[in-house]
Amino acid sequence: MNTGKVTLLSAGPGDLDLLTIRAAKALAAADVVLLDDLANPGIVSLAPRARVIRVGKRGGCKSTPQAFIQRLMQRYASKGLHVVRVKGGDALLFGRAGEELAALRRAAIPVEIVNGISSGFAAAASLGVSLTHREHCQGVTFITAHLQDHGEPDWAALAATGTTLAIYMGMSRIESICAGLMTTLPASTAAAVVQWAGTADERRLVTTLGRLADEANAAGLGSPAVILVGNAIGEAEAFTVRGFGRAASEGLAHAA
Amino acid sequence: MNTGKVTLLSAGPGDLDLLTIRAAKALAAADVVLLDDLANPGIVSLAPRARVIRVGKRGGCKSTPQAFIQRLMQRYASKGLHVVRVKGGDALLFGRAGEELAALRRAAIPVEIVNGISSGFAAAASLGVSLTHREHCQGVTFITAHLQDHGEPDWAALAATGTTLAIYMGMSRIESICAGLMTTLPASTAAAVVQWAGTADERRLVTTLGRLADEANAAGLGSPAVILVGNAIGEAEAFTVRGFGRAASEGLAHAA
Repeated sequence: MNTGKVTLLSAGPGDLDLLTIRAAKALAAADVVLLDDLANPGIVSLAPRARVIRVGKRGGCKSTPQAFIQRLMQRYASKGLHVVRVKGGDALLFGRAGEELAALRRAAIPVEIVNGISSGFAAAASLGVSLTHREHCQGVTFITAHLQDHGEPDWAALAATGTTLAIYMGMSRIESICAGLMTTLPASTAAAVVQWAGTADERRLVTTLGRLADEANAAGLGSPAVILVGNAIGEAEAFTVRGFGRAASEGLAHAA
Repeated sequence: MNTGKVTLLSAGPGDLDLLTIRAAKALAAADVVLLDDLANPGIVSLAPRARVIRVGKRGGCKSTPQAFIQRLMQRYASKGLHVVRVKGGDALLFGRAGEELAALRRAAIPVEIVNGISSGFAAAASLGVSLTHREHCQGVTFITAHLQDHGEPDWAALAATGTTLAIYMGMSRIESICAGLMTTLPASTAAAVVQWAGTADERRLVTTLGRLADEANAAGLGSPAVILVGNAIGEAEAFTVRGFGRAASEGLAHAA
């Protein structure tokens, strides 16, 4: 009997302490690990039994084609092995899980999904802010600036919701994002960039929407990063002024 | 020297395996645990040294006032104790973390935030869907139907974003939510309710926006639940038809 299966495993933002206990158990039991290059490579220490295959796909870089990754998962699971497909952040937020799930269903391969911490949540934790402070907003929207058809989201419609915006994969077009949002939002709206959120290399910038693009470029902030926009994020300034460790109020801070 | 501090700890959707490793470590070191009643009470087994105080606040029920919870945190932290404030889901998504952080800052009490899995992510994992399948949408919006001023969000503006909607605290007004969304979205839009997502008591309904309110009421689904709306959620039907365990295609399924 073929007992092969695939676990789509969320590696969280980077720090291995931010894996769930369920993720650690799945890794310990893995026969094969397919490792995304946004995941912390140290995660393989939790999978001592596994053959590890790196299948990174970074925007604009040399990468492993999605179809090949899907064939690898199917090939090993069809041999009766437990394949753990490691994805950065939460597997169900961006990151092509929809296509991988569809392919595995077509191949009748059982799938388990293990959730994790997406970088937008880790960024908010580092800034010391709620994503949805009820004095400022009624929700939060996670959006990718990198669309399938290479267009851009409707920034005015997103701004009109009044939700905090957590924008992924937006650093290469941060000027046009900010310009698009400022057709609806005032330039004084609080905004932040957190690069490598939840890792030892984290860098943070807290400012206003009107100054965000210039300041992020001046500081050399780039991918991978989350752009946060909305007055709930403005609570970060009070947070850092009070001396809670790393001072975003100094403009740009590097994690200790 | 006063070494007291507060950890705002995200308990995730319920299953203790969905806690992060960092959360488990914080609980093990806790002197005092303040326990939200949406968190799994079994979590106290991870905090053997701690005095446990239940501070539940459920909509419409007898509850502990927010100001009292904030005073408790400050009182114990001021005595030099490590206070762990346990919140269901992720502490930074709804749940009043913004106010608690502000109060702790005013009192100059150090705070650490530990992220967790919000129930919307757990619901998507149970349904076997990406929240942001790129063939259907460019993001996901988490929104609470329970606003500070007791009004309702602008459902038409939210629907106009084209994002998947994950609606929290909406079961008591599911008819008006669906009606509001249908001013913009077709009745055929995929929709789901997941009650007690990520717990042993989980119940799921997958249908269309036009039928959601009637079917949820007929099935007796109530709080706590997440309402998911958007065609990315429609991928759940293929998922369940293929026999991946618990069949949402049968209309309503109870977790094994």
